[in-house]
Amino acid sequence: MLKVTSQRSTINQTKIKDDFWSQWIDIISTKTIPYQWKALNDEIEGAPPSHSVENFRIASGQSSGTFHGMPFQDSDVYKWIEAASYSLIHYPDQELEAKIEELIELIRQAQQDDGYINTYYTVAKPNERWTDFSHGHELYCAGHLIEAAVAYYEVTNKDTLLAIANTFVDYIDSMFGIEDGKRKIYPGHEEIELALMRLYKVTGNKMHLNLCIYFINERGTQPSFLLEENTLIGERDRWFGLDYHQAHAPVREQTTAHGHAVRAMYLYTGMADIAKETGDKELKKVLKRLWNNVTNQKMYLTGGIGSQGHGERFTTEYDLPNDVAYAETCASIGLMFWAMRMLELENDRQYADVMETALYNGVLSGISLEGTKYFYVNPLEVFPSAVEERFDHKHVEPERVPWFGCACCPPNIARLITSIGQYMYTTSENKINVHLYIGSQTEFNVNGKKFEIIQKTNYPTDGKILFDIHPEKPTTHEISLRIPAWCEEFTVKINNQVIHSPINDDGYITLSKEWTEKDTIELELPLLVEKIRANPRVRENIGKIALKRGPVVYCLEQEDNGPHLKNIFIPRDETPILNSIDNITSLEIKGVRYEEDQWEGNLYSSHEPVRKPVKVKAVAYHMWGNRSPREEMLVWMNEI
Amino acid sequence: MLKVTSQRSTINQTKIKDDFWSQWIDIISTKTIPYQWKALNDEIEGAPPSHSVENFRIASGQSSGTFHGMPFQDSDVYKWIEAASYSLIHYPDQELEAKIEELIELIRQAQQDDGYINTYYTVAKPNERWTDFSHGHELYCAGHLIEAAVAYYEVTNKDTLLAIANTFVDYIDSMFGIEDGKRKIYPGHEEIELALMRLYKVTGNKMHLNLCIYFINERGTQPSFLLEENTLIGERDRWFGLDYHQAHAPVREQTTAHGHAVRAMYLYTGMADIAKETGDKELKKVLKRLWNNVTNQKMYLTGGIGSQGHGERFTTEYDLPNDVAYAETCASIGLMFWAMRMLELENDRQYADVMETALYNGVLSGISLEGTKYFYVNPLEVFPSAVEERFDHKHVEPERVPWFGCACCPPNIARLITSIGQYMYTTSENKINVHLYIGSQTEFNVNGKKFEIIQKTNYPTDGKILFDIHPEKPTTHEISLRIPAWCEEFTVKINNQVIHSPINDDGYITLSKEWTEKDTIELELPLLVEKIRANPRVRENIGKIALKRGPVVYCLEQEDNGPHLKNIFIPRDETPILNSIDNITSLEIKGVRYEEDQWEGNLYSSHEPVRKPVKVKAVAYHMWGNRSPREEMLVWMNEI
Repeated sequence: MLKVTSQRSTINQTKIKDDFWSQWIDIISTKTIPYQWKALNDEIEGAPPSHSVENFRIASGQSSGTFHGMPFQDSDVYKWIEAASYSLIHYPDQELEAKIEELIELIRQAQQDDGYINTYYTVAKPNERWTDFSHGHELYCAGHLIEAAVAYYEVTNKDTLLAIANTFVDYIDSMFGIEDGKRKIYPGHEEIELALMRLYKVTGNKMHLNLCIYFINERGTQPSFLLEENTLIGERDRWFGLDYHQAHAPVREQTTAHGHAVRAMYLYTGMADIAKETGDKELKKVLKRLWNNVTNQKMYLTGGIGSQGHGERFTTEYDLPNDVAYAETCASIGLMFWAMRMLELENDRQYADVMETALYNGVLSGISLEGTKYFYVNPLEVFPSAVEERFDHKHVEPERVPWFGCACCPPNIARLITSIGQYMYTTSENKINVHLYIGSQTEFNVNGKKFEIIQKTNYPTDGKILFDIHPEKPTTHEISLRIPAWCEEFTVKINNQVIHSPINDDGYITLSKEWTEKDTIELELPLLVEKIRANPRVRENIGKIALKRGPVVYCLEQEDNGPHLKNIFIPRDETPILNSIDNITSLEIKGVRYEEDQWEGNLYSSHEPVRKPVKVKAVAYHMWGNRSPREEMLVWMNEI
Repeated sequence: MLKVTSQRSTINQTKIKDDFWSQWIDIISTKTIPYQWKALNDEIEGAPPSHSVENFRIASGQSSGTFHGMPFQDSDVYKWIEAASYSLIHYPDQELEAKIEELIELIRQAQQDDGYINTYYTVAKPNERWTDFSHGHELYCAGHLIEAAVAYYEVTNKDTLLAIANTFVDYIDSMFGIEDGKRKIYPGHEEIELALMRLYKVTGNKMHLNLCIYFINERGTQPSFLLEENTLIGERDRWFGLDYHQAHAPVREQTTAHGHAVRAMYLYTGMADIAKETGDKELKKVLKRLWNNVTNQKMYLTGGIGSQGHGERFTTEYDLPNDVAYAETCASIGLMFWAMRMLELENDRQYADVMETALYNGVLSGISLEGTKYFYVNPLEVFPSAVEERFDHKHVEPERVPWFGCACCPPNIARLITSIGQYMYTTSENKINVHLYIGSQTEFNVNGKKFEIIQKTNYPTDGKILFDIHPEKPTTHEISLRIPAWCEEFTVKINNQVIHSPINDDGYITLSKEWTEKDTIELELPLLVEKIRANPRVRENIGKIALKRGPVVYCLEQEDNGPHLKNIFIPRDETPILNSIDNITSLEIKGVRYEEDQWEGNLYSSHEPVRKPVKVKAVAYHMWGNRSPREEMLVWMNEI
């Protein structure tokens, strides 16, 4: 029997009741999750077949046939289970739960006698287990199995999947580690690290913690086993270097973010878990250094990361091209994971600000408003003719698609949105920190007593947030509210009395009193449209502005502004005006554009070009590509 | 014996005496050609080995060993012979001539009994002749052999190489053509077409003309033999599509330029030769359409063409990225070839303007001021950190290099510069058209009499050109002088009398009189520095200017302006001032740049950035990368 002790769980603590997010959770729960189930079962016409459920049927002997898909196809199933589990919090659904149980039984049957589970290696490469840590993804899939197991257990209290995962982890622990007789390896694609920490918090099993610590510490030791095992070295298109796997140096010696952006995010998340759990100050210092490198030198305004398609990776500092950006949806989700762990390590609004930016822009852009079409890559400008003709744009999709051959992003965004309540708060002994403003009801345990906070807000449509406080009994402790860095003025009231509270060094204001029933806090963050400029080291954005209001970045679409969006200039003294059209918050601003017909077919001219005034309309970035597909889109506009 | 009748030859007609060009011819003749001889013989330390002379030794049985290099390695030898032959015009050199003869003897020995010559197929793939027209380059190499043979013959009157080429052409003609029993193919890489026309003009052999016409007409017929023969289809990185070879449609149906830029230029050059020779009006119409597409929609300001590294090719209209430009030196040389043929088809300054632009910018940038280091790719901006880290920049060299594994460009530029005199004039029955202004002495044959024009000029340093006319006896005919499109005002004098001559529709002014000894013409083209803007359909250049003076495009270098060149803005009302430093014509203009230290490590800000005034120095584009290597360079600057 499993020894299960809960150390931390916020999964069931928060109920979302929010204009914006309730709608999203509704879409994910009622449309996306059923749609993705069909996708995993190859029932979506016109979508690349997933075959991932069928792979399990084959591996378990229920079906015959050959494996199809990526080596990590199993992870799509696990992420779907995780998302479906979270959706049960919002929409209890016996039928869905039965479907998950059925799937778990299939996974159980696919598990080998020694505990190993991976349909790719079981079906397609039975003699090649653990031979390709760079691209094989066995430990990555194990990590997603563990996360699904923990999620399903936390939501339903059922340990069917947890038992399977636990057995697999026992097997993994028997194979790999520092001890004599074990292989000294680490995963090429990180994920199991953060998953083991989630497992550890549920099981309390020190082995789970130690295995995670081992994987973190082993990474990047030299000489690298990845070089020794690898047969792809020299194949420029398939071997991306040690730093692609964050394996160029031991993690404690890493000063800048390298390689595959999702891998990096999952690693840093696991590292932060360890730093929190063990109080490892050195690791915390490393993480702060990496955080600074990512968010102040390598992050798009949208919270997108990974500026190169080849290797889906980070490049050099300030290298942030808009049109060939990669900015994978999963990478922004990973950035949220990491940001949340950093908030657990130390309260600082920089983490929450970035988390919120990624959420409202680079993450949400990855899914259509109907929840059934996806972007993998989230560029900051799109020119369909370049995408069609240029080889260096081939990773960019100018149109949301029903599924991907490599379908990591769709279930990842589904599990993120259905678990959004977990990103709102952190608590420490005598303090509740509020990071995200979302209409919701959350139950805390303060000194052994229930303490409920109800947020009522239309944020980010407007910046007023009302907190109703419901303590089980009057209690004195601190509530800290994030004042985002973009907010230069704010007002806060307790029980309608304005409080003159300074902003702490961490960017929060701290309110402390004996909280009693019917106490209210009212926070007002003025949501002004800002013209954002990038550090001039970012070559692509020099002389340009982007529009942002609160956490929401805006973009221009061809649908509203005609083609050739780059030929729009925003005069320095023009101010954007907020619109509200069809439930879409959009902006209007006066601009100019060069007359195109004066050129009479010429390519170059020494004559001063003629400019004409135009009305420019911008919409929230995350909504782009939801109307006419294969049209232009632009975030950074020329300023004049 | 060969029947040799010269139809046209200007190779020996012009002697260059020019500050700018005599120096270049001197460098090429005394440094570059000896240097390249060493390179071809693998005697340059640190350069990739060429092995190309050794390949001939192996093929001729003088040496044993294996073939090394590209399948088209032979062409480097042929182009070197062509360049060396032209250099003999300027610098008669017995020793060099003997070296060429020795090489010709080697080639003769490498020629197979049936007339075939190609060291790659002879040595490395003896059973695979004529199996890979897409990448095999056998007819391409044959073309360069022919060009070398014609050049050597025209300069020295020796037909040793011509005889070899002629035998090879006889063999080729026996293999390929419309007639029964011959294979219906055409070269994947065009070159032999224009070479056959050069040969035809020397030999008068109609077969040479007809073979060329056949290759032109066969190209692009469907179904394509290239698809049938090709085993690479599906290999995204090696099969670039039919349009890569300009074989997507019969040439007469082609409306836009496609594919590999050098291939396209060589094809269009051959097509123009045919159109001139046969009076084919349909072909002329096609060429004008293609010319318009290339020069008004797909050409960099520098005369560079081919905006994508992958496939070294044209992409879509107005897609002209500056940093990932390909703009191969050979492509700009090919553009000059084509432009010159278009001038022979019809006099119009658009051809000469483009030819001159390519010459002074995209061609000359391909060679260092010392003549011994080269660029293959000629981008319009370079950021070394991007080149080092970004996969989509991997074709860009931020530093001139001593040689290339694929070394087509270095000997190509050598033969171009040593034959520059051929690009200055065209003649028709009663007219001499002057296209390029270069200090020189040229002897024409007018109505059977000698007619000499001496140009004296410092152009393009200044815009004054003096023509001394020396007719053998007084004669009445027209002399047309190009007024470049960038020149809005000009003055022209005959014997010190101002002539008020209107510009013809073709962009030339026509002077006609009975020319007598001591007549002079004086043309003054004011060389003003222009701020050039690109058609706003060119996304990359919106809101930017480039500086140009006469035909010379300028650029900024890090050496003069510090790093982060993109952070320089030129105010709309600032005027550049001409400098003259160290024999280099450079410009200065007042600019501003954003303070970088105000950012304090932040990536994005809503604060108005602080600008500080800076002096901006620009140098001629073709000279970039001659001082500190691996530094930034920029042509298009932000305007404010």
